[in-house]
Amino acid sequence: MTVVAACQLGLTVGEVEANRAAAAAAVVRAAGHGAELVVLPELCDSGYVFTGEAEARALASPAADNPTLRGWQALAGRHATTIVGGFCELGEDGLVYNSAAVVGADGALAVYRKAHLWDAEKLVFTPGEAPPPVVELPFGRIGLMICYDLEFPEWVRLPALAGADLIAAPVNWPAMPVPPGERPCDVVRVQADACVNGVFIAVADRCRAERGVSWVGGTVIVGPDGYPLAGPVTADAAEVLVASCDLTRARDKKVSTHNDVLADRRPLLYRPVAQ
Amino acid sequence: MTVVAACQLGLTVGEVEANRAAAAAAVVRAAGHGAELVVLPELCDSGYVFTGEAEARALASPAADNPTLRGWQALAGRHATTIVGGFCELGEDGLVYNSAAVVGADGALAVYRKAHLWDAEKLVFTPGEAPPPVVELPFGRIGLMICYDLEFPEWVRLPALAGADLIAAPVNWPAMPVPPGERPCDVVRVQADACVNGVFIAVADRCRAERGVSWVGGTVIVGPDGYPLAGPVTADAAEVLVASCDLTRARDKKVSTHNDVLADRRPLLYRPVAQ
Repeated sequence: MTVVAACQLGLTVGEVEANRAAAAAAVVRAAGHGAELVVLPELCDSGYVFTGEAEARALASPAADNPTLRGWQALAGRHATTIVGGFCELGEDGLVYNSAAVVGADGALAVYRKAHLWDAEKLVFTPGEAPPPVVELPFGRIGLMICYDLEFPEWVRLPALAGADLIAAPVNWPAMPVPPGERPCDVVRVQADACVNGVFIAVADRCRAERGVSWVGGTVIVGPDGYPLAGPVTADAAEVLVASCDLTRARDKKVSTHNDVLADRRPLLYRPVAQ
Repeated sequence: MTVVAACQLGLTVGEVEANRAAAAAAVVRAAGHGAELVVLPELCDSGYVFTGEAEARALASPAADNPTLRGWQALAGRHATTIVGGFCELGEDGLVYNSAAVVGADGALAVYRKAHLWDAEKLVFTPGEAPPPVVELPFGRIGLMICYDLEFPEWVRLPALAGADLIAAPVNWPAMPVPPGERPCDVVRVQADACVNGVFIAVADRCRAERGVSWVGGTVIVGPDGYPLAGPVTADAAEVLVASCDLTRARDKKVSTHNDVLADRRPLLYRPVAQ
């Protein structure tokens, strides 16, 4: 069993040191529960609701020499864990990216740039062009997605086909109207992403409104059958969710005597005829 | 507004006449609510839990000369509606297909053969090779999917890209364990299918156990935001669900100032790197 944690945090745009401290405290708390993998929200150093490109750029740092990632590396070493979190990246090309990293005691194992940008992010960030990485860790294979990426099933499919056991997903889900008694569709989509691929998904979301934007607070850890193992929180409160995950369940894609969710795909038929 | 109905029926394998009568009664009831489109379950003439290929073959009829489809045509004419339902098809090639048709007063407008077969269906049916049709009706464009097809987001994407406003989905969802308080994942996946494509989906499921197989009873009509407009029933009872659907909502894929769920796709990136 692998203990996985997903941390819902209240952050403040521009308050990078305070945000790093809040994330560090959550990692320590998660490690106290034995977490071998800790997932933090999207852009969890910079915050999210920028006034524009200039503000984001001023808060961005290169992945290769990054105070946020160095901090996570130190924490990972001290607490024998691996951290996945979002950070505001200044590319070597001078462009600003909405990125996430997998960081262990030896440093960043992978960096991923969000490929599907949400709303005003399109005015701030450049979308990534590389497929989501899948990182082999001692306890399993971890894929990455960031927020709106999760709404593109073709994209979620890629790490599953590449062998991911768990997809770690830093998000900042802005709250939208939800009918009474319904679970927010952000969470519903993640449940579907998990079961159609037979993978675990751990989502870390935000809480506490930022510049008038409030959040779903939908932090959740979902099993490969699509049902939550912990959460969804769906409350405006900081929280560290923890779940014991038998990641080997994601290696068996069988869902009936004659069905396998990946082998049953018919990729040769999945070509749009006319658009 | 278009009134759409989805009918949850109790059927019995092999009792073709009784099954047709049950479906006809549901269509009459739906038409009484003003339904312009009525969705019936998968294989709703033959029933589902066959002893083997021979039993299914004995219950199958060619689409071109088909008592089930003729019955739906007469009903559609009499009640000024359009019917989508599943039937057991004997192909002109001598093979047996798990098919669905869109039938109006002038006859079958499209026939679709299920492309993703569930469990023992693989021992009985030949999978279809053609993409799901999208039929232009006076009130909107209707796509087709059958049951397990809905678990392949690449497949659901095709009718959405081809302009479907609503996907009609005859199903027979065998019941699986569901954790307390959770909505069955069959329904959750349909909610996700709807909102990632911005389409309506009307699902007609079964009730009343057949040869020891019980059903989700998950008949539901979902809007393009992923939330149910009627249902899910999630009870072992016959029911005719009705929802007034503004199908023009499916023509606007915008989900924020800068986002459009179809235009935001990045198909050139959606190629598996290595499998």
